[in-house]
Amino acid sequence: MNATLETIKAHRSIRRYEDRPVDQAHLDLILQAAQAMPTSINAQQVSVVVVRDAERRQKIAALTGGQPWIAQAPVFLVFVMDFHKTALAGARNGKPQVIHESAEGALVGTFDAGIAMGGAIVAAESLGLGIVPIGGIRRDPQAMIELLGLPPLTFPVAGLVVGHPADRSALKPRLPVGSFVHEETYGATGVADAVEAYDRTMEAYYRDRGDKSTTWTAQVAGTYQQVYYPKVYPTLKDQGFSLDK
Amino acid sequence: MNATLETIKAHRSIRRYEDRPVDQAHLDLILQAAQAMPTSINAQQVSVVVVRDAERRQKIAALTGGQPWIAQAPVFLVFVMDFHKTALAGARNGKPQVIHESAEGALVGTFDAGIAMGGAIVAAESLGLGIVPIGGIRRDPQAMIELLGLPPLTFPVAGLVVGHPADRSALKPRLPVGSFVHEETYGATGVADAVEAYDRTMEAYYRDRGDKSTTWTAQVAGTYQQVYYPKVYPTLKDQGFSLDK
Repeated sequence: MNATLETIKAHRSIRRYEDRPVDQAHLDLILQAAQAMPTSINAQQVSVVVVRDAERRQKIAALTGGQPWIAQAPVFLVFVMDFHKTALAGARNGKPQVIHESAEGALVGTFDAGIAMGGAIVAAESLGLGIVPIGGIRRDPQAMIELLGLPPLTFPVAGLVVGHPADRSALKPRLPVGSFVHEETYGATGVADAVEAYDRTMEAYYRDRGDKSTTWTAQVAGTYQQVYYPKVYPTLKDQGFSLDK
Repeated sequence: MNATLETIKAHRSIRRYEDRPVDQAHLDLILQAAQAMPTSINAQQVSVVVVRDAERRQKIAALTGGQPWIAQAPVFLVFVMDFHKTALAGARNGKPQVIHESAEGALVGTFDAGIAMGGAIVAAESLGLGIVPIGGIRRDPQAMIELLGLPPLTFPVAGLVVGHPADRSALKPRLPVGSFVHEETYGATGVADAVEAYDRTMEAYYRDRGDKSTTWTAQVAGTYQQVYYPKVYPTLKDQGFSLDK
């Protein structure tokens, strides 16, 4: 064990923040960490838009369907899949870019944005800051694109709230490790038992917190029985992406 | 600055490894770090298949089109987008899962796998181990699915080689920070200048290493003028995903 591993294992998502700014020097370190992470073929098809402006954060909080922590915390980072930069590379070399017209391209851009956010999360938490990732920026992605002035061939994948935590909540248990880690091949039989055990774990977790009683499977089933952000696909198309080949 | 930030900023991808195993205790810490990272609505639609078997690593090295470091290093981690587990949640609650039939679902699963790999990368490097992410497992995803016994509604997004580095290569420069970090709105005008400056930086980097002279834009343009892993889309369909809504 070392300080880095302790930081990662202590991760909690924070949804209540103190009313004080994040030092610019700390923010710079977080962004440097995000950019230091690896990308596929070093193509670096990721950008981050830093939103400090209070009015813009208010608008984003509303666009996500009401997530007040976006307005409360001083910094909101938007992780953008960015094939605009790589298209410039194609144009400079007389080789028009095609990769953004494929599922492969969308996977690469999205995955690398995730790796970059992973670096940013660990960096922020190592500095004592709190974070919560925000998928809700995909609720109305066209409005996000307009608000941030994003060009064609880019897409806002997820956001990250950064601030000083005012919330001392407990670690949230994870699914039993045997359903996450699979040795050599996927152990499908263990997964059903793990899911059942985890329902009991999460029931107890919510009960101990005094929250409304529910299970993990009930929560997930309720959300995943529909495409909860249906504007993602049409907006990807409008931005110049194709995922259907 | 702290040890965690120093670890992240010192990231280099390693393609030559010592012939010695990774301690199980260290591997466990890396996997715990990956699982500790956040996921959208706590749905945990990520799994990791741990490949230590030498013959299986040889096969994967061949499937990726010849990446010998996969066979050379003792551990290969396959990060899997996993909507099999969440589909069990739907089944338990009489609410059949729909999310995997959308671009939104593919983005969530891929992004969260990226965040998990980000945690694994930082954890491994904090332990003095070397890593290199491998997108090449998408070159023949159906063969990977068979090799790892992956069930429907899962997809192998990317791999991670883990071992003891035998390579003391230099840090690879990144695009100028102004093309990665954008203040409040996307600064499209600065991006073209940054790309031009980075071409000169990378020319010097390759020259100093004695590598074949090239530029960043030439490299990216050469790869992105085609869908370089065209089997991704049909295999996603075969696994039960739809990305076209």
